[in-house]
Amino acid sequence: MAFHGHLRSGKPVSPLDSILVVGTGLIGTSVALALREHGVEVRLADLDPGAVRLASELGAGLPWSAQEGGPAFDLAVIAVPPQYVAAELLALQERGVARHYTDVASVKALPLAQAESLGCDVASFVAGHPLAGRERSGPAAARADLFLGRPWAYCPTPETSPAAVETLLGLIKLCGAEAVRVGAEEHDRAVAVVSHAPHVTAAAVAARLAEAPETALGLAGQGVRDVTRIAAGDPALWTGILSGNALPVAKVLEAVAADIAAAAAALRRTAGHDVPDGEPAPGGRADDLAGMPWVTALLERGVTGTGRIPGKHGGPASVYANVQVIVGDRPGELARLFQVAKEAGVNIEDVRLEHTPGLPLGAAELSVQPQAADTLIGALRAHGWHIP
Amino acid sequence: MAFHGHLRSGKPVSPLDSILVVGTGLIGTSVALALREHGVEVRLADLDPGAVRLASELGAGLPWSAQEGGPAFDLAVIAVPPQYVAAELLALQERGVARHYTDVASVKALPLAQAESLGCDVASFVAGHPLAGRERSGPAAARADLFLGRPWAYCPTPETSPAAVETLLGLIKLCGAEAVRVGAEEHDRAVAVVSHAPHVTAAAVAARLAEAPETALGLAGQGVRDVTRIAAGDPALWTGILSGNALPVAKVLEAVAADIAAAAAALRRTAGHDVPDGEPAPGGRADDLAGMPWVTALLERGVTGTGRIPGKHGGPASVYANVQVIVGDRPGELARLFQVAKEAGVNIEDVRLEHTPGLPLGAAELSVQPQAADTLIGALRAHGWHIP
Repeated sequence: MAFHGHLRSGKPVSPLDSILVVGTGLIGTSVALALREHGVEVRLADLDPGAVRLASELGAGLPWSAQEGGPAFDLAVIAVPPQYVAAELLALQERGVARHYTDVASVKALPLAQAESLGCDVASFVAGHPLAGRERSGPAAARADLFLGRPWAYCPTPETSPAAVETLLGLIKLCGAEAVRVGAEEHDRAVAVVSHAPHVTAAAVAARLAEAPETALGLAGQGVRDVTRIAAGDPALWTGILSGNALPVAKVLEAVAADIAAAAAALRRTAGHDVPDGEPAPGGRADDLAGMPWVTALLERGVTGTGRIPGKHGGPASVYANVQVIVGDRPGELARLFQVAKEAGVNIEDVRLEHTPGLPLGAAELSVQPQAADTLIGALRAHGWHIP
Repeated sequence: MAFHGHLRSGKPVSPLDSILVVGTGLIGTSVALALREHGVEVRLADLDPGAVRLASELGAGLPWSAQEGGPAFDLAVIAVPPQYVAAELLALQERGVARHYTDVASVKALPLAQAESLGCDVASFVAGHPLAGRERSGPAAARADLFLGRPWAYCPTPETSPAAVETLLGLIKLCGAEAVRVGAEEHDRAVAVVSHAPHVTAAAVAARLAEAPETALGLAGQGVRDVTRIAAGDPALWTGILSGNALPVAKVLEAVAADIAAAAAALRRTAGHDVPDGEPAPGGRADDLAGMPWVTALLERGVTGTGRIPGKHGGPASVYANVQVIVGDRPGELARLFQVAKEAGVNIEDVRLEHTPGLPLGAAELSVQPQAADTLIGALRAHGWHIP
């Protein structure tokens, strides 16, 4: 059963009966799985035959070979590193493999410029970028729901055909993502701030852990785990992304480094130490000789910045009330908890469980609609649960 | 019922019948709540009468006034910002308020040095630091289980009396934390790496979000949320912590800033731009003219660093298998899920739910013992659950 529906605007969309996914890594395979769930015919290609076989066995579709003939696919999704997108696009277009083409690379100006200079048919290509990922990579980490509720940027140019855009919008809709139209340069500057520079910064913090004594690691809490989580990502993949968006990322990193160096200089002065000779001055700023008030101001800018991040569902940052419950460490403990919530008519929106082996107790944090919190707390207490 | 037990080593510990908590913020109130659960008599003091009243209403203990007489407490827990610990210790000791004293500040060398120079009785004082926290602060955010399974550093000096150490170990045990003995300077260098410098770095990344266009925020994914989460912490509180550990933090930040500046310079060269005049050179390093291979090496150091962080339960980083299940958005859906796990005899160690309003489906990620994963998957599939 293929998708022949209408967009929310009521405009008819191109039918999406068949797609080719080139590159069966995390993103390509997740797109394939999402479309298979809607009955779209999906074919798979990758330089690595093992990756295609694994993706296929996971139910992402059947392998495809460039030697095959047959009718053109409605859409070819090019899911390869950014620096290879344009060459792949050219090769597919020369064979007339599909009616329309898109990519999923994390940078957009570079593949568009390369497609132009290689002489690709730019009318049938719409550059795209789903803002979804995991610190794991490869087809085994793929999930059909990877894009649910996530932004999916797309960057039509004046040369792009409206039909190609419609086809891509159909794909985005089937993946459950939110289409966000944005210019390629604006996209690249945006992801430099919200993705690429944070990745390098997380790596620089994690690099300190690589050389720290064991004692320091033993004192690691949740904060440093969160700050460095993305730094576990594949260095080769990220080198490709960063070099494809080099100048925007460099500009953000220069501002980050200047702030951190200025904070370090302020702290040295607070400790009564002069900033050592040869130490980088904080970027020739007027606050060269600033002290702790400057550090406080940086922390305050940070608070302002975190407050601007939309909530994880795209809404305000804290729409749910959180209820903490102490739970035991036995099978069935959570089943009883959720049963009580069910009987009280309360829907659990989100749940986190903190569990400590060797101790009989942990804490579950349940997120519910604010108006349901008191109902849930009352019901849990009435059943003997301990709410701290 | 008070705690008169033995430590795991079999050594007798000092009885802990009564404590005074001075400073009813997040940490002080959480200590109080944890000890109340064990029947210890807890009294509360704070410069802010509203904070004491709120903590008391939350069940953390009864308010205490410095004008009161009465027998000495077994232990006074000084839970005030690091720069005020020594003065508070002196004031309490001059009144003979407790037999032993500890603190919970995030830095240790400064309060110890100040206690010495103010002429405090250093024999009855053991400096301590529970490695637990939240981005929220104040008594309302306190939890009795905040310290469960977390490290709790303590720093005895040659002058510290063994009885004072025993009393603090009793407190740590009642809070469910793991005692970690460490020298004050070593502690401060460690937390500079795993807590204080990551905090400033997160703020520097979040500061970019404060000035970014709305488009950029709309493309924010989970990565930047994780990197910047701790930057939402209270700037005044963190200014006190950072100035109390100024030199160790400055040294770590200088290394972080140098790595980030060097990555920025390498990216500028990759983009074909010269590094602008007046730009900070990357700390006079031999890699001044490095390119993308240097960036790759930084990312690889980051991967190494993240790999050294112990798992969240203090064990290896990935002891559990993760099973993903697609769940609907109705009350009772999770209750049924956990019921199936219970009937299969599988204990859910951890659970995360990703839920997207407006869409009927989300994904639950269940962590289980690796040998139980197949059992759980089989049981869930047999009951009609969809495992992607």
